[in-house]
Amino acid sequence: LPPRDRGERAFIARWVRPVEDERVLVGPGDDAALVRPLAGAEILTVDALVEGQHFDFDLFTPAQVGRKAVEVNVSDIAAMGGEPRYALLSLSFPAHAPEERVEGIYAGIYQAAERYGIRVVGGNLARSPLFVLSLTLTGEVDPARAATRSGARPGDEIRVSGPLGGARAGFLLLRHGQDGFESVKRRHLEPTARLDLGRALAPVVSAMEDLSDGLSTDLHNLCEASGCGAVIDAERIPVADEVRDAARLLQEDPTTLAVQGGEDYELLYAVAPERAAGLPGFRIGEVVAGHGVRLRRGGREEPLPRGGWDPFA
Amino acid sequence: LPPRDRGERAFIARWVRPVEDERVLVGPGDDAALVRPLAGAEILTVDALVEGQHFDFDLFTPAQVGRKAVEVNVSDIAAMGGEPRYALLSLSFPAHAPEERVEGIYAGIYQAAERYGIRVVGGNLARSPLFVLSLTLTGEVDPARAATRSGARPGDEIRVSGPLGGARAGFLLLRHGQDGFESVKRRHLEPTARLDLGRALAPVVSAMEDLSDGLSTDLHNLCEASGCGAVIDAERIPVADEVRDAARLLQEDPTTLAVQGGEDYELLYAVAPERAAGLPGFRIGEVVAGHGVRLRRGGREEPLPRGGWDPFA
Repeated sequence: LPPRDRGERAFIARWVRPVEDERVLVGPGDDAALVRPLAGAEILTVDALVEGQHFDFDLFTPAQVGRKAVEVNVSDIAAMGGEPRYALLSLSFPAHAPEERVEGIYAGIYQAAERYGIRVVGGNLARSPLFVLSLTLTGEVDPARAATRSGARPGDEIRVSGPLGGARAGFLLLRHGQDGFESVKRRHLEPTARLDLGRALAPVVSAMEDLSDGLSTDLHNLCEASGCGAVIDAERIPVADEVRDAARLLQEDPTTLAVQGGEDYELLYAVAPERAAGLPGFRIGEVVAGHGVRLRRGGREEPLPRGGWDPFA
Repeated sequence: LPPRDRGERAFIARWVRPVEDERVLVGPGDDAALVRPLAGAEILTVDALVEGQHFDFDLFTPAQVGRKAVEVNVSDIAAMGGEPRYALLSLSFPAHAPEERVEGIYAGIYQAAERYGIRVVGGNLARSPLFVLSLTLTGEVDPARAATRSGARPGDEIRVSGPLGGARAGFLLLRHGQDGFESVKRRHLEPTARLDLGRALAPVVSAMEDLSDGLSTDLHNLCEASGCGAVIDAERIPVADEVRDAARLLQEDPTTLAVQGGEDYELLYAVAPERAAGLPGFRIGEVVAGHGVRLRRGGREEPLPRGGWDPFA
């Protein structure tokens, strides 16, 4: 860098990559990006990762932070059955942050974006006393094939796309400095959106949502949006063997990790039984008339309140 | 609020307003928003306001912070000649922030959004030790009528849409606790995007940009994007009388406030002389072959480096 050229523009020149795409008329570096209109309906979502709240650099590499920022947004697109398209990164960080952190975050964002064919068409840089990444992602979907949270009907099966509790167990293992359990820790550090599965499920299911806040909270959301209730079986909630092992070591109840843990980024969906044959995932319960969520466990049934980590509670 | 219902969902229910719009298929509250495709090309932009960097609550009311977050984004849409459409708000704030602050920020955002017909279709809430607002805004424009930074040609006039330096003077007056000068202070506290003007100018101009970082920096950006240089006249840069009065009191050079100040959110544009007749604004110089920006002042001409407030310098 020329010595007199170390300002914001130089930062952008170093980190932000130009976009070559015939649908992108104006990429990074102008007042705004300009892209050709989509054929389908447009999905719009934003998610933020705040240092000290969602990640710490003593647990995450900068590239993991960048990849996670993309994955959690792709997960929202997946839950609607769409395909991700364009991203905007609003990043703020301290003046004396090590250069490698910013560089690594951008590297991680571009790695994940490339995997999904996402074009990072713009963004914003600002100063703040800590790292805050706010990533906006657009997606495209045929509205006739999109899923929302609001279509579940009594009698539908409730299903999840994969085992739960791993992300929370991974976080606890990392925080306790526990050796081993690398695949469990990766569920926290390296979540992966269920994009292909979301696209396949969306035209078939009656309602879908990604599991970001924890099964109990997310299932309440789905039921409230759909105007119905749900009963789920503790014994049917899938938990991976290594998560059970980790739970034993951590003296945690594996079902609690799975129900309250959050950040698993699996898909939660309701589907009419006659359409459920052959769908991937695990049937954990059913939609019922009324409202509220109940958990069957050891022959008893009791209310399952919203739970999980809610920083606003 | 029910006592057990004070979490994120309750916050959202209190602050986030549902959207009634036939083009919005899914509004706030699902995994993501879903909107019908635009007819024209889509503009995508994001800007962040960070507490302590861009605003402080001892100078700004919360509603002013919210309105400014919208206006600075609308200004980017204006600079492309587009119309704003959909917004996503990513907001993080401290656990013990006074409720009125969050409420006031939302109120300000909805006030400004309503003025422009913007639908706030989604967002994200998170915790952080300070307020960070990252607002994403989409817009719509016929690509044949859109302006970018990159079309200026030697011989073009360089023009600005209104007087400059007010926002910086207003900030300094506020910081010094100076009485009076309310209209100058409002240039800092209550910026207004030049939306109608941007739409009118975009099909006529060769290049356009909004004045957010300061004339010197923004003109360098426009020249670099266009592959040309520029010469401007200090005597022609419009400065309002009350800003000159404020400058005298502050012992600041009014031309420096106008050239380096930033945040005026006027439009800077280049236009062929034969197309300039009758356009609003002030001619301050001309585009020349080569590169770099030069300032004529008192019969002399000297390089005008990038300047203004660059938090990354």
